[in-house]
Order: sequence, then structure tokens, then C-alpha cells
Amino acid sequence: MKPAVCLLSGGLDSATCLAFARRDGFACHALTIDYGQRHRVELESARKVAASLGAVRHLVVPIDLRAFGGSALTDDLDVPKTGPSNGIPITYVPARNTVFLSLALAWAEVLSCSDIFIGINAVDYYGYPDCRPECIKAFEIMAQLATKAGVEGRTHVRIHTPLVHLSKAEIINLAQELGVDFKLTHSCYDPDPSGRPCGLCDSCRIRLKGFREAGLQDPLEYIHENR
Amino acid sequence: MKPAVCLLSGGLDSATCLAFARRDGFACHALTIDYGQRHRVELESARKVAASLGAVRHLVVPIDLRAFGGSALTDDLDVPKTGPSNGIPITYVPARNTVFLSLALAWAEVLSCSDIFIGINAVDYYGYPDCRPECIKAFEIMAQLATKAGVEGRTHVRIHTPLVHLSKAEIINLAQELGVDFKLTHSCYDPDPSGRPCGLCDSCRIRLKGFREAGLQDPLEYIHENR
Repeated sequence: MKPAVCLLSGGLDSATCLAFARRDGFACHALTIDYGQRHRVELESARKVAASLGAVRHLVVPIDLRAFGGSALTDDLDVPKTGPSNGIPITYVPARNTVFLSLALAWAEVLSCSDIFIGINAVDYYGYPDCRPECIKAFEIMAQLATKAGVEGRTHVRIHTPLVHLSKAEIINLAQELGVDFKLTHSCYDPDPSGRPCGLCDSCRIRLKGFREAGLQDPLEYIHENR
Repeated sequence: MKPAVCLLSGGLDSATCLAFARRDGFACHALTIDYGQRHRVELESARKVAASLGAVRHLVVPIDLRAFGGSALTDDLDVPKTGPSNGIPITYVPARNTVFLSLALAWAEVLSCSDIFIGINAVDYYGYPDCRPECIKAFEIMAQLATKAGVEGRTHVRIHTPLVHLSKAEIINLAQELGVDFKLTHSCYDPDPSGRPCGLCDSCRIRLKGFREAGLQDPLEYIHENR
């Protein structure tokens, strides 16, 4: 089996992306970045998802992006709960996907692997610049020039983004088809200490709307439910 | 003063690069990545260099690249001391500059800063793919697409590589002109526990040859001297 590095946050999208890579026949090396996110429950979800979807290995790499500041996901800023944000939201973590893809590239190079999967989405990305296909394409070109195997012409680095053009409802249907256990996934930006999702942040709203549109029931129990 | 993020390892090249950015009038935010390198003395050098060259701030961000394995600089592999290596050397750390530049980009974005300095060199790079100008150019293009300010057209991300086409002797002459204190800089891949450079690894050989060609005396005391 061909190896691939799959970025895995523990959320619905990255879990679906990992399941997709598995179905495509890759031996998945799941990579979770512990970047000091306030929602620590994500890391626990990532561990369970990696195990349930048969990743050959799961690595959690800590990097403290709080050192830089600047995001509601890592700082003591309030996560907005009043509805969809306009422009680039405060939950955006500066250059997060660039940092994550660079780390995936480092592991891929050690594994002599040229395939990287990331569950980004340009439909519901609502303002995150590094979720756009043109940004990923530019990373791919750079990665080819930055690696041993790429420079030596032995391989072609490929960043797979199977979810990039899917709506949340389509992702949920795909996840169902691929056997993702929704209970293990986690999407909330501001869960309570026990890990229960808030139901009000942008991420919860998008997830709940996606389940409604997919005609499926989200098995998670929310603090505030408004289905 | 315009802010810039300057990657600073504590070595001669990055110190010269920081001094160059200062002379160009930038308020320098020095960024050192503690990536689990075996030569821990680098971090101490970085602190002293940042202070001596008037960086407005110095941040040390830990990220454990040992998690991935694959390099003599982070693993328990022997650093070669038998002369210049051919091809990509074992001291290459996979995707290191890509990871470092991504982290610099994250900090730059938080600082609303579009200038990043890195002291890479394509003359003495002897086989590190991510030290080549075309690789840096590709990173610049990607960074423009990956950041808030870039996407909104408010700025143009620029990766400055003032040393990229200089020989080691030219870098040493420039460092002298810019007032870099050579005693504070550190280049060895395999120093002894007190931090004394070996004098035999590729990095020491290149540094010593550079000083000879520049007609200057390296103030460092080497374990093995062969000047």
C-alpha cells in the first residue's frame, strides 16, 4: 500500500478525508497538530477517529501557535455566537494550514511519501484564505521544489483535497457512505469542559445545517440545540 | 519603523541576515525555532545575537521535528566529519526551511508585517533543496495567497534572502561591516558539551574556509583546528 500523510483534527471534515484516503487504498499516517487550541477535546477525538478508521500510525505533534497570538481559537478572545461572520473571522488562526501542510510535508519526506491529504473546504470556508484551492496549488508547487525527492525528480508531491468543492451536506453523506462514526468527530469552537459542543458557534451552525440538509441526525448532544 | 520577522538560528548567516535587516531600517522580530536540534548551544547563541543586534523582540518557539526522524541534526545519527558531502547530506532536516518560513509567516501575519528575512545561501548550501532561490520564490507566491492581508490586496509578502548569492567569505566580510560579533555566533553541527565547535563537520569546514578566504581570524576556539 502506498503511504500518505493525512492531517487529522478530529473534526468531521478531516475524519471524512482520512476515510476517503483509506478507501483510495493509502496506508494512512494520521498527523494531528496540537497547536494550543482551546478546544482540547479535539485531540481526544482525533485519537479515536484515527483508531476507528484504521490509520497505520497516528502522531500528535505539539506546536504552540499561542506564542504568536491573534486568534479566538488560541487566545482569550470570545468565539462569536451571534450568527455567520462576515469577512475573515476571528477564529482564523494565522497561517494555520500553511504550518500544518509544512509539517505534513516534513513527515511525508521522512516516509518517502508524496501524497498528503487535507480536509479543507472552500464552500463553507467563509473567509479563511488558506482554504482556497489556489493556495493549496501554490503550496504543492513550492513543496515539489523544497523536497529531496521532488528536486531529484523521483516523485511528484500531491496535496489531495477531496472535500474542497463539497457542501457540508455532501461531506456528511460521503462520511456516512465511508463509514465514519459521527459520534467520534468533533467540530465545536467552544465546547464545555466535558466536551459538549455549544451549538451556537459558526462551526456548530454549519455542522447542524449540514445534517439537516443531508436528512441525517447528528448523534452529538449539544448544549443549545436549535435543529 | 517597518516591522520584519527575521529567522535567527544563532549561526553566522542568520546573524548577518538580522544585522542586514536592521541596517535596512526594519524593526526586527527575531524568531528562533527550537526544533529539538542536538546542538542546543545554538539557542543560547540566538539569544545573545538577538540582544547584541538590537532585535525589538526575540521569540523561541519549540517544535519537536524529532517526532518525524530522518536527520543527523535531530536523530542519533553520526554527523559526517570526513570532508564535503555529495548530494543531499544526512544533516538535512526534512522540509526545515518550509516549516520555519511557515512559522515566520504566522507571526508576520499577527504583526501585520509583510517582510520576512531568512539567511539561506545557495552557494554553500551543498544539496539542501529548500535553500534554492526558486524554492523561496514559490514560497512567496504561496504566502501571498495564504494570508489575510495578501488576499485582501493590502500587502505584498516578501521573503528577503540577502545572503543567497554570497560566498561564505563575502558573508563574513558583510558581517564584519555590519558589526556582527563573531564570538556570539555558532555554526557547528556537533559541538562538545561546553559548546566548543568540532572544526571537522561540513559547517565548521565551510566557516573556517570562509574566514581564511576573507582574510579574517575566526575568534571561536575549535576542538580540532586546521586553519
